[in-house]
Amino acid sequence: METQELTGTTADLDLSAVLQALADPVRRSIVERLAREGEVPCGGFGLTISKSTRTYHFRILREAGLIEQREEGNRKLNTLRRDEIDARFPGLLEAVLGE
Amino acid sequence: METQELTGTTADLDLSAVLQALADPVRRSIVERLAREGEVPCGGFGLTISKSTRTYHFRILREAGLIEQREEGNRKLNTLRRDEIDARFPGLLEAVLGE
Repeated sequence: METQELTGTTADLDLSAVLQALADPVRRSIVERLAREGEVPCGGFGLTISKSTRTYHFRILREAGLIEQREEGNRKLNTLRRDEIDARFPGLLEAVLGE
Repeated sequence: METQELTGTTADLDLSAVLQALADPVRRSIVERLAREGEVPCGGFGLTISKSTRTYHFRILREAGLIEQREEGNRKLNTLRRDEIDARFPGLLEAVLGE
């Protein structure tokens, strides 16, 4: 159930929420890193922001359906929902990330 | 000088501002219409929102560099800065508008 709660569904992929999430440069940097590297723990991004701000950014990304998270011990691991996003909004991530 | 003031420059095209502007469904509908039809007056979109809200949305679009406006008599005519946006963020409008 915990996994269920932390993982968005494809129906969650609303374009407004996705664009809103990607409009922030910190969140974009998280998405870029996940696009390059796959699974990264929340603490592994080297972000120079408070833990509560970091948690906020991950929540926005998760609620927009851009990332999913799973718990492993005391870490939370993040993955970009690349296939789902590309299927729903073809070319969007490519354009935003300048790939 | 009036035209200068109402027209953004390519330097204004900041990705965060552009995504923020496109994150709103009303503003996206304005951009979609301009992409299809070319120049449209502010009053020509059939938007069921107050004039002040409409003015606000056009200001956000203009400040993000997505549209430019010119005055003609008592009308304000809007154009999508398609070439500039496509040059700066290839594929972005296409992806957002689902073209």
